[in-house]
Amino acid sequence: MLSFVNDYSEGAHPAILEALARTNLQQEPGYGEDAFCASARERIRTACNDPTADVFFLAGGTQTNQVVISSLLASYQGVIACETGHIGVHEAGAIEFTGHKVLTVPAHDGKIDALELDDYVGAFYGDDNHEHMVFPGMVYLSHPTEYGTLYALSELEAIRAVCDRYGLRLYLDGARLGYGLVTPGTDVSLPDIARLCDAFYIGGTKVGALIGEAVVFPRHGMPGHFVTMVKQRGALLAKGRLLGLQFDVLFADDLYTRIARNAIECADVLRAALVERGYRFLVENPTNQVLVVLENDHYERLREKVAVSYWERVDDRHTAVRFATSWATRREDVDALIELL
Amino acid sequence: MLSFVNDYSEGAHPAILEALARTNLQQEPGYGEDAFCASARERIRTACNDPTADVFFLAGGTQTNQVVISSLLASYQGVIACETGHIGVHEAGAIEFTGHKVLTVPAHDGKIDALELDDYVGAFYGDDNHEHMVFPGMVYLSHPTEYGTLYALSELEAIRAVCDRYGLRLYLDGARLGYGLVTPGTDVSLPDIARLCDAFYIGGTKVGALIGEAVVFPRHGMPGHFVTMVKQRGALLAKGRLLGLQFDVLFADDLYTRIARNAIECADVLRAALVERGYRFLVENPTNQVLVVLENDHYERLREKVAVSYWERVDDRHTAVRFATSWATRREDVDALIELL
Amino acid sequence: MLSFVNDYSEGAHPAILEALARTNLQQEPGYGEDAFCASARERIRTACNDPTADVFFLAGGTQTNQVVISSLLASYQGVIACETGHIGVHEAGAIEFTGHKVLTVPAHDGKIDALELDDYVGAFYGDDNHEHMVFPGMVYLSHPTEYGTLYALSELEAIRAVCDRYGLRLYLDGARLGYGLVTPGTDVSLPDIARLCDAFYIGGTKVGALIGEAVVFPRHGMPGHFVTMVKQRGALLAKGRLLGLQFDVLFADDLYTRIARNAIECADVLRAALVERGYRFLVENPTNQVLVVLENDHYERLREKVAVSYWERVDDRHTAVRFATSWATRREDVDALIELL
Amino acid sequence: MLSFVNDYSEGAHPAILEALARTNLQQEPGYGEDAFCASARERIRTACNDPTADVFFLAGGTQTNQVVISSLLASYQGVIACETGHIGVHEAGAIEFTGHKVLTVPAHDGKIDALELDDYVGAFYGDDNHEHMVFPGMVYLSHPTEYGTLYALSELEAIRAVCDRYGLRLYLDGARLGYGLVTPGTDVSLPDIARLCDAFYIGGTKVGALIGEAVVFPRHGMPGHFVTMVKQRGALLAKGRLLGLQFDVLFADDLYTRIARNAIECADVLRAALVERGYRFLVENPTNQVLVVLENDHYERLREKVAVSYWERVDDRHTAVRFATSWATRREDVDALIELL
Repeated sequence: MLSFVNDYSEGAHPAILEALARTNLQQEPGYGEDAFCASARERIRTACNDPTADVFFLAGGTQTNQVVISSLLASYQGVIACETGHIGVHEAGAIEFTGHKVLTVPAHDGKIDALELDDYVGAFYGDDNHEHMVFPGMVYLSHPTEYGTLYALSELEAIRAVCDRYGLRLYLDGARLGYGLVTPGTDVSLPDIARLCDAFYIGGTKVGALIGEAVVFPRHGMPGHFVTMVKQRGALLAKGRLLGLQFDVLFADDLYTRIARNAIECADVLRAALVERGYRFLVENPTNQVLVVLENDHYERLREKVAVSYWERVDDRHTAVRFATSWATRREDVDALIELL
Repeated sequence: MLSFVNDYSEGAHPAILEALARTNLQQEPGYGEDAFCASARERIRTACNDPTADVFFLAGGTQTNQVVISSLLASYQGVIACETGHIGVHEAGAIEFTGHKVLTVPAHDGKIDALELDDYVGAFYGDDNHEHMVFPGMVYLSHPTEYGTLYALSELEAIRAVCDRYGLRLYLDGARLGYGLVTPGTDVSLPDIARLCDAFYIGGTKVGALIGEAVVFPRHGMPGHFVTMVKQRGALLAKGRLLGLQFDVLFADDLYTRIARNAIECADVLRAALVERGYRFLVENPTNQVLVVLENDHYERLREKVAVSYWERVDDRHTAVRFATSWATRREDVDALIELL
Repeated sequence: MLSFVNDYSEGAHPAILEALARTNLQQEPGYGEDAFCASARERIRTACNDPTADVFFLAGGTQTNQVVISSLLASYQGVIACETGHIGVHEAGAIEFTGHKVLTVPAHDGKIDALELDDYVGAFYGDDNHEHMVFPGMVYLSHPTEYGTLYALSELEAIRAVCDRYGLRLYLDGARLGYGLVTPGTDVSLPDIARLCDAFYIGGTKVGALIGEAVVFPRHGMPGHFVTMVKQRGALLAKGRLLGLQFDVLFADDLYTRIARNAIECADVLRAALVERGYRFLVENPTNQVLVVLENDHYERLREKVAVSYWERVDDRHTAVRFATSWATRREDVDALIELL
Repeated sequence: MLSFVNDYSEGAHPAILEALARTNLQQEPGYGEDAFCASARERIRTACNDPTADVFFLAGGTQTNQVVISSLLASYQGVIACETGHIGVHEAGAIEFTGHKVLTVPAHDGKIDALELDDYVGAFYGDDNHEHMVFPGMVYLSHPTEYGTLYALSELEAIRAVCDRYGLRLYLDGARLGYGLVTPGTDVSLPDIARLCDAFYIGGTKVGALIGEAVVFPRHGMPGHFVTMVKQRGALLAKGRLLGLQFDVLFADDLYTRIARNAIECADVLRAALVERGYRFLVENPTNQVLVVLENDHYERLREKVAVSYWERVDDRHTAVRFATSWATRREDVDALIELL
């Protein structure tokens, strides 16, 4: 049985396991004060081209969104996401659990439009009194988005300009950031993201780590008492070394982007074959999530041989599914899948 | 430099690393639906002598306390801990963050006394109206406690009886449970705990795992929609396999208790030497945390050669420190420490 | 200067002030245990035709929504409202403050459509896994709605049927319920609401009281420990007598509906005049909120002589405004307003 | 049947009812934007001798504590109260409901000792790492305290000095402030409190108002977006005029302190009689709550003729009860009570 069900089905890149074994009995302080975290922080600062960036390691994506957003917002503020944003749909209300509302603007293939954002936020500064409404304090976006699309640099800059106009923080969810950074044609680099965002995270769980996400607060932007707030949210690991070591490995010798490329290459091969065979995409995107519309019969037959993600019902006769590639996808499995299609 | 600073300074037992490497590329479903979690659950049910137990894996201790307590309590309820209970002192208000108060009863070397508990809770059922007070809904205790002490089975049974009398849930924090289970003289077994508690966790982080705690809800006691509540609290790992695999290893061939024994043996050797040399203990306990009162000068000299945990100020001239042993402590380091004392 | 700005610009119906003066020095227990609350509860049970209804008095509408919704929902549940529902838009995130998400379905002139509701909730019970989403636990609706419209009895029954199908609670926000109950043509009575809802409130603040809302939980439906939860949310008044006495007066001799009729009659006169003069309504409704589209110039001139509520921008040249009538509106003021239009 | 059960058994001072009747049909804006609130704010600023004070009106004491404390604290901070502080004991966990812990220091007849406070807070700034603990951000005290005692000015100044040393906010719960201000021998005035505190409230519910408390933030200290935070906590009244008008009446012609004096005079008469008859006080205090230890038999007999508050069990044979006097207590009732004792 083939599997393209997601990009977190395997363990970790072998270099990480090797480093875990090599350093296993080295005694280190807890709670992120270890040497591995320190080294990883330094490597990430370099990769972000921001020697002043604060870097903190957390275990998972929803946790990271919850901790960062609730730590940066004031009590009366909400966070703006587009309607398909992960925090508003698939995180079980983790943001609301901390007392904050997720405010929504329309989604365009998973992306926020800067002009619509400007309209939405601008209304809070108009004649009408908005004291009875949740005040926007932050913009949340994903890159790549939940639909595998990417922002152009100009789009991010336009969103940043809106944030500057109204004093909003900009936070980027990079659960699959590695894949976005190496997609051919993207003009968005890690230093660009560090320059434009107030906070973002570099996803490890879906890009080669066992678990872990690296939160970056450029320009010394980490809120005061952040460690305490992480602990208060149940997110502080005693063995922070496990997270630090993995990012230390991933950010040595460009391993992070090197292994991400495999996912994009595999997805490109798959996409080309799908186009050739006349398949329809639910959303066209250039990253590692290939969203395809299948006839229901076809879907049923396919499921017997390939594990895929059900995405959504399209109409009575069609279903959208996702083929996800990853750092670990083998080219022969892609070929076998193409054979089946 | 020797280190007895805590029991989470190293990585994981080598058998865990070996299993991670062996299973690394096996594709598994996410969020705890993998084969390793399934196997580990089964092994833990067996160890608990409760085939009906629900078992769930989480990443850390504070997270586990937060998730379990807030999932089981009703809105108007609080959790009772003794004054030294970890949830009330050293978890940065993680329980209060979820809206619940930690109610306190006196601590006796880290333990709750059943009679005092009965008095405390009984008052809520007396003549006086307690509608304006936080209603106790659960008892939290640690075993071993924060002071390394252990409950006797009769003490746990007495606390259970109070819980039964008033409809309270009993929850046991087993961050160091492995060490408690193998301490010579204890009459409390894992099946006893499963029989007496409504929920408890078997600590992995401090007993040989990279990270991870196994929450057990005996007798199908896991609250409905628990996965959603875990996600809502930011605690659901996409790669649940990392947790499941570790507990699968730890609960095969009694590895969990076998490696715990090393900590107790090392602590016993150290304790014997301390007694021989006339040292005073802050609290006498039989587990892996040795709490010793040192003269300040002595403490200062010792710190140059041994990393220990500052515990508390005793008086102007004395300081209490903790020597922690673990599954990874080497006997030669204990000998070297004794040499220094 | 005339004012039609809202329905809470005056104090209270004189009968309430008279009763306050008459009973002022009567000593009564606190926290709703007084004789006035008891009598008012009984009158409301009678008016609801439910001798088993639990009745509780709170101070304001947002508070009531917050207390009732957060007391009835489980941790993992959210409340469904339509997009224009007060709890989702104009209560500053009071529901999210208690940890719960407001889930939205489309609004049709302020109303929820039962079929759309069925689709929305039904999806949670389909093939797809919804464990990572906020689970709907309650339906919130307003009657009259924020747009002054009313549900037909058949519409409420259809929504109730959806709630029954999926085990959802139905909660009705009756901030302006009095006005809705006496609107000519409505087929929804107070006993109907009590029969169909799990909880609802009878608004006092906007219908003749100084402050206060009467929450009704039909069929002994008040959650256990409700007083404690009210206190915990800061909503328990020491002098509950103030609330009880007012509702005791309002529900003696049908005062509540008698005074509500004035608002409807005044609104009807105004509406007829507007129609005659060719004004366009933003939304047509039969209750006490008249929503009219004005040319911007006209609006500016009108504002100099009449206080109205800005409602929303319609287009570059038009603005929607609200004329609200109330129990206290004087017919001569309506005539003067018509004169101006 | 006589009643000395509490100081909120009656309605309001007649001057308030008279003003309500007089202004009843005057149309005013909602949400505290009315003319009465504006006037009352000005009067309170004058009484506080702080023309820059921000003043806000809320409905009840627990609500006020919850709103003020949760609006001023950062996420990671807790509030320090003494062990008998109202927020920690009798507010059903209203502070924890907002995510914050109530930290406790010892109580001395209901009061905080500045030296103990200094020790407690100072420890957070010592050598030991406190990142895993709830950080103190505010000191809460009551004046008069829950035991009817009063702080001396020097005691408040010493507490203020501790707050200054560590950057803590000082908040005073003045539920019964009127009674404290007019107690013979007190050297603490309203301007003193305004000078020393960052926030406090002047209690109305227990001192002559129907309901209502006036929160004062001296020196423009009200947090930004406070109205939104009040709304978010369910505490914003549409008819803020009801609160404003009452404080406008209470702070015209010193009515507030004039009516408070009656309570103190009645309590003094009662105390003198109790001393004469050899009664024992649970706590000696000079304000309107007289706490007396009675033999159980005596208590049982007394309860048949006088309503009092059960306070606490003293020992097997004795019970402490509270006689509360108020602005509304009649001297003949005090005489009748003395007769019975």
